[in-house]
Amino acid sequence: MKNKYAIILGNLGNTRDRFCPGYKSNPSTEDMLKAAIKNVPHIEGIELVGTWDIRPDNVKDMKSRLNDAGIACASIIPDTFTIPEFGRGSITSTDAVIRRRALDYLREMSEIALKMNCEIVNLWLGQDGYDYLLAADYDQERNWLTEHTRTLALEFPSIKYALEYKPKEPRNFSYHARMADTILAAKETGCSNVGITIDTGHSFYAGENVAEAVVLAKRAGDLLYHMHFNDNHGNWDDDMIVSSVHFTCYVELLFWLKKTGYAGWLSMDQYPYREDAVDAISESIEWVKKYEHIVDTHYNEIDVLIKENDAVKTSKFLRKLIV
Amino acid sequence: MKNKYAIILGNLGNTRDRFCPGYKSNPSTEDMLKAAIKNVPHIEGIELVGTWDIRPDNVKDMKSRLNDAGIACASIIPDTFTIPEFGRGSITSTDAVIRRRALDYLREMSEIALKMNCEIVNLWLGQDGYDYLLAADYDQERNWLTEHTRTLALEFPSIKYALEYKPKEPRNFSYHARMADTILAAKETGCSNVGITIDTGHSFYAGENVAEAVVLAKRAGDLLYHMHFNDNHGNWDDDMIVSSVHFTCYVELLFWLKKTGYAGWLSMDQYPYREDAVDAISESIEWVKKYEHIVDTHYNEIDVLIKENDAVKTSKFLRKLIV
Amino acid sequence: MKNKYAIILGNLGNTRDRFCPGYKSNPSTEDMLKAAIKNVPHIEGIELVGTWDIRPDNVKDMKSRLNDAGIACASIIPDTFTIPEFGRGSITSTDAVIRRRALDYLREMSEIALKMNCEIVNLWLGQDGYDYLLAADYDQERNWLTEHTRTLALEFPSIKYALEYKPKEPRNFSYHARMADTILAAKETGCSNVGITIDTGHSFYAGENVAEAVVLAKRAGDLLYHMHFNDNHGNWDDDMIVSSVHFTCYVELLFWLKKTGYAGWLSMDQYPYREDAVDAISESIEWVKKYEHIVDTHYNEIDVLIKENDAVKTSKFLRKLIV
Amino acid sequence: MKNKYAIILGNLGNTRDRFCPGYKSNPSTEDMLKAAIKNVPHIEGIELVGTWDIRPDNVKDMKSRLNDAGIACASIIPDTFTIPEFGRGSITSTDAVIRRRALDYLREMSEIALKMNCEIVNLWLGQDGYDYLLAADYDQERNWLTEHTRTLALEFPSIKYALEYKPKEPRNFSYHARMADTILAAKETGCSNVGITIDTGHSFYAGENVAEAVVLAKRAGDLLYHMHFNDNHGNWDDDMIVSSVHFTCYVELLFWLKKTGYAGWLSMDQYPYREDAVDAISESIEWVKKYEHIVDTHYNEIDVLIKENDAVKTSKFLRKLIV
Repeated sequence: MKNKYAIILGNLGNTRDRFCPGYKSNPSTEDMLKAAIKNVPHIEGIELVGTWDIRPDNVKDMKSRLNDAGIACASIIPDTFTIPEFGRGSITSTDAVIRRRALDYLREMSEIALKMNCEIVNLWLGQDGYDYLLAADYDQERNWLTEHTRTLALEFPSIKYALEYKPKEPRNFSYHARMADTILAAKETGCSNVGITIDTGHSFYAGENVAEAVVLAKRAGDLLYHMHFNDNHGNWDDDMIVSSVHFTCYVELLFWLKKTGYAGWLSMDQYPYREDAVDAISESIEWVKKYEHIVDTHYNEIDVLIKENDAVKTSKFLRKLIV
Repeated sequence: MKNKYAIILGNLGNTRDRFCPGYKSNPSTEDMLKAAIKNVPHIEGIELVGTWDIRPDNVKDMKSRLNDAGIACASIIPDTFTIPEFGRGSITSTDAVIRRRALDYLREMSEIALKMNCEIVNLWLGQDGYDYLLAADYDQERNWLTEHTRTLALEFPSIKYALEYKPKEPRNFSYHARMADTILAAKETGCSNVGITIDTGHSFYAGENVAEAVVLAKRAGDLLYHMHFNDNHGNWDDDMIVSSVHFTCYVELLFWLKKTGYAGWLSMDQYPYREDAVDAISESIEWVKKYEHIVDTHYNEIDVLIKENDAVKTSKFLRKLIV
Repeated sequence: MKNKYAIILGNLGNTRDRFCPGYKSNPSTEDMLKAAIKNVPHIEGIELVGTWDIRPDNVKDMKSRLNDAGIACASIIPDTFTIPEFGRGSITSTDAVIRRRALDYLREMSEIALKMNCEIVNLWLGQDGYDYLLAADYDQERNWLTEHTRTLALEFPSIKYALEYKPKEPRNFSYHARMADTILAAKETGCSNVGITIDTGHSFYAGENVAEAVVLAKRAGDLLYHMHFNDNHGNWDDDMIVSSVHFTCYVELLFWLKKTGYAGWLSMDQYPYREDAVDAISESIEWVKKYEHIVDTHYNEIDVLIKENDAVKTSKFLRKLIV
Repeated sequence: MKNKYAIILGNLGNTRDRFCPGYKSNPSTEDMLKAAIKNVPHIEGIELVGTWDIRPDNVKDMKSRLNDAGIACASIIPDTFTIPEFGRGSITSTDAVIRRRALDYLREMSEIALKMNCEIVNLWLGQDGYDYLLAADYDQERNWLTEHTRTLALEFPSIKYALEYKPKEPRNFSYHARMADTILAAKETGCSNVGITIDTGHSFYAGENVAEAVVLAKRAGDLLYHMHFNDNHGNWDDDMIVSSVHFTCYVELLFWLKKTGYAGWLSMDQYPYREDAVDAISESIEWVKKYEHIVDTHYNEIDVLIKENDAVKTSKFLRKLIV
C-alpha cells in the first residue's frame, strides 16, 4: 500500500467554539502553508477551504506556492458552513435566491478546483439539514439537494464531488448523515462523478462501523472518494488526534481500505482547540502510517481472521501488536 | 386516514431477558389469541411469529381461528432469532449448511404466509450481523444476504418481504441497521417485492429521525411495507408503551405516513416485561389512534408548518394539543 | 405553586457556533434588556452573564434599569468560558497564575452579585475538565476545584453558589458532569452555601433522569438552588425551545420540583441559533407554565400514580392531557 | 504492582438473551469449576453467584473444592436479578413482603460469604430501579434502598458490601447507575463497610471516564472495593473480551488503580454469547496483565504525563506501545 497523505490547511489556524471566539492566534493562509510544508511530515497534498484559504483572487498565488513546494491540492472544500446567509441551508434553503447563490458559489469553487488541477471537491453541506421536528419538508428539501448536486456534477464532469456526511452539527440533523443515506443521495443524482467522503470521527459517533461503511461504498460502485482522519470519544465530533481513544477500528479501517482498493488521499481533519496544531496533526499522520504498516505487515493474516468469525483469534492477533 | 391496526401475538406472552428467564406465566398461542380478540381494541390484524405461534402443523387451525374472529393475518414473522443454530447468523452464516437451512426455513414460512392469505413476511434477521471488529468479512456476508433474500423474493413473487432494521441486539452490529442501509440491501436484490419495516423504537435509538426515514423509503420507490410501534428512552430498544417518552415525533410520523400515502398496517410491537400485556398494548393502540386523530384534524395546518421552517410556529401548534 | 420565571439576558443576543461566527446581528445589552422587559411574558427575573452583560463599570446602570422595570437580578453567571486565558481551565488550570486570576474574577463577580442584591451566583465552569485521556491529574485538579470553590463560598457567605453541571462541551469531560458528582463536589467544600443548578438539557444528554436528579439534590440536603430550562434531541446540548422534543419528563420534573418544595427560579436558557430569540424564549416560558398548570391541577393524582408503579395507569393519565 | 486475578464462575456457562434461550450447552457448577481451575491462566480467586453456583446446601462442598485448588472465593454475588419475584425490585420493591424476602436472602448470602472466608459481597441490584417515567416514587424507594443496605452492613460488619453500578438493564434506569450516585448511596448508609464495584463496561456506557471514577471513589474515602473487567462498543453492556474495542482507557485505568493503591481483585466479567468461554475469558486476563505490565514499566513516565496536560506528548507515549 502506498498511501498519499494530506492535511486540511485551516486546521493549522485558530480554533473557536460557540463560547470562546478563539483559543489561539490567527495565522494567515500563507503562514499556515509555510508551516505545513516545513513541519508536517509525509504530506503530499493539502486541502483548501473556500473563502478561508482559496478565492478567485488568490488562486494563481496558491497554485504557484503549492507547485513550488511539490505539494498537490488534494481537495477544495467549499465553505457553505461559516457564511451566515447559508445558515438555514445552502442548496436546500427554502429561499430560492439563497439556493441560487449557493449553487453559484459551488460553481465558482469548482472552477477554482479546475484551475488548481484538483480532482476532488469535498462537499460538506453542514448547514443543509434541520433542527426542529415538524418544521421542515424533508421531501422537498431533498429534491433541491439532488437537483443542485446533479446540476453541478453535470456542469463539471471532470471533477469528483465527494459528499462528506456527518450526523449532526451545526444542524441537529444533517441530510448527509451516514454512509448509507449519502450513497442514496449520490445515486439520486444519477451522476457517476458524485461519491462520498468518510470522516472517521463523523462515522464513529454516527453509530455505524467505519470499516463496514467502506464496504458499503465499495458495493455501491466504488463510491469512496476521499478520507478524513481524526478520533473522538464516540458521542460527538471531538476532532482529536487519531488513536487517542480508539485502536482496533483503525486497524480494521486501514485493512478494508486496502482490500477494497481505495486509492484516494488519507487526509487529516482535526480541530486542535488547545494543542499545538502542527504537532497534533503530525501525530495523527504518524498514527495512520503506523496502522498502514500494521496492515501491510499482516494483511494475509487479517484476511484469514475476518473469515473465521472467531473473536478469540482476533484478540490474540491484536495483543501481538502491543509491546 | 383509515388506518388498519394490528398487534404481534407473542407480545401477549411471557417476557424474559438475559438475566431473568421469565417475568410472567407462559400462555398458549390459543389463549393469547382469545385474549387479543376479546380484549385488545380496534385491531383488524394479528402478526404471527414462526415457531412460536405458527408452524406447518397448526396453519389450518390458526387460519380458521382468525377467520372466525374476522381478523386478518397481518404478517408472518419467521423466527431466525431464538433458534440456537442460527445464533451466529442465518442466511449470512459462514457455514453453508446453516445458510441452506435458514433459506429452507424462510421458504417454509413463506408457504405458510400464502396459506394464511398473508401478504407480508416481516424479515427481522436479528442474528445476521457481527459482534467483534476484525472478525467478519462484511462483503462476503452481505453477498449471502443479498443472494438469499433475492432467491426468496423470486420464488414467492406475490409476497412482500419487509426487512425490519435495528441497529443492534442481539448482535452488536446488524446488517439491516437503519432505513438507508436497508434500502440499499433491498435494492441490491433487484426485486420489486423487497421493502422495509420501520419499528419506531429501533429508529429512535438508531439516531435517525423516523419521519425522515419514511420520506427516504418513499423516495426509494414506495419501499415502506410495514410499521411496528413502541417507545423507548432513546438509547436502547426498551419496547415500551407508545408515547410514554416521546410526543412530537409521533405527530410528525403519522403526518408523513399520511402524506406519503402509506396504506399498510399500524402494528404494535412491545415487550411488556412487567406490565399487564393486554393493557399495555391496548394503551399503545389508543395513543396511535390519538395521533392519527391529531393529524387528520390538523393535516393542512401541519402541511403549511413544515414548509415554513419556523420552530416558534411549530411550538405554538404543539402547545394547542395539550390541555 | 407560584413559580418565579426568569431568562438569561444573553440568550436574546447573537448566536454562533464553531463554524459560523454569527447567525444574527449583535444587539447591545441595553437593547436586549429593553426587548426582554417589553416582550417576554411572565418574567420577574433576569440572569446576567459576567463580561457580556455585567461588569464593574455598568453595575450601577444595570441595577437601576432592572429596578425601574421591577425585575430582579435572578443570578450572576461569571464568564469563565469565553475568555481564552481560561481555555485550559479556570480554577483548575495547571498554571497557578491562571487559577489565581480565575479566583479573583469570581470574587469580582460575587461582589457584583452583592451589589445587585442577587442571591445566586451560577457557576458554570465550562472550561474545567479535560479533553484527552492520560493527560490530566484528576485528583490534583479536583483538589484545586474544591479548594477555590470553598475559598469563594467562605468569603461570600450570603451568596449561594449554584454549580451548573454538564457532561461535556466545551471540554470533552467536565468536572461538574452530572447531578451526583456535582453533589459530591459541593459536599467536598464543606460549605452550606454551595449547591447545584440543573439545566434540563444538560441532564437529558447526561443519561440521568432529571426528576430523579431533583430527588438526589433534595436528599443531599436541599441542594437544588437554580433551574435552567430548554430541550434537546437527547444526545447533545441543542438548547432548543422547551418541549419541542420531550413531554412526559417535564410533567415529572415539575411534579418533583413541587413535591420537594423547590422555591428557586425557573429560568430559560436557550441558544436560538436561527430563531427569533424573543419568540423562542417566550415559547419556552409558556410551555413551562403549561406544565406548572398540569401539575397544579393533577398533583394528588400524580402523587398516587408514582406510588403505584403501574405504567398503564400512568399512560392513561398522560393521554388525558392531550386533546 | 502484584494484582490478584479472578473470574466469575458463571461466565463459563450457558449464555442467553431475551430472544434466544441459550446459545450453548449448560455445564454444571462443578464442571465449570474444573474448567476454570485447569484452563484459565493466572487466577487466584473465583466469584460465585448465589442460587446458580452457591447455596446453603453446597457451601461445604464448594469450599473444599476451592481449598483443594488453592483458589480463594473472591466474592459472593447474590442473585436478585434472575428471580421473578424480585423482578419489580428486591429491597426497593413497593411490596413489603418482597423487600423482607430480599433482605433475608441477602442475609443468607452474607452468611455463606462468612463460611467461605469471603470478604466481599458484590451487590449488583439489577432489578432495583424503574422503567417508566411518572411511575415510581424515587424518594421512597431510595429510602428503602438505604435502610436495607444499612441493616445488612450493620449485621455483617466484617463483610465489605460492594455496590456494583450500571446505568440500565434489566431496568431502564438503575438506582445504582454511575460511580458518583453510588457513592452517595453508600454514604447514605453511614456504614464504613459499604463501597463500590466498578464494572468497566458499565462505566464505559455510563458516559463517565472510568479512570476518573476510580479517583472519585478514592476521594470519597477509599470506596473502591472490587473490579470487574470487560469491554463494549460504548453504547451498551456488550460484555466483550477486554480491549477488543478500547485501548487507551485501560492504560489509564490500570495507572490510576496503582496510583490510588487499589489492592482488591481484578476479576473478569463477560458474557461470551457465541465464543468459547474459557478462551474468551483467558484472553481478557492476558490483556489486563499486559496493561498491568505497561503501567509497571512506565509508571513514572505516565505520572509526569498526566501533570503536563499535553495531548501530543501523551500521544507520542501511546505510539511507543504499539509495534
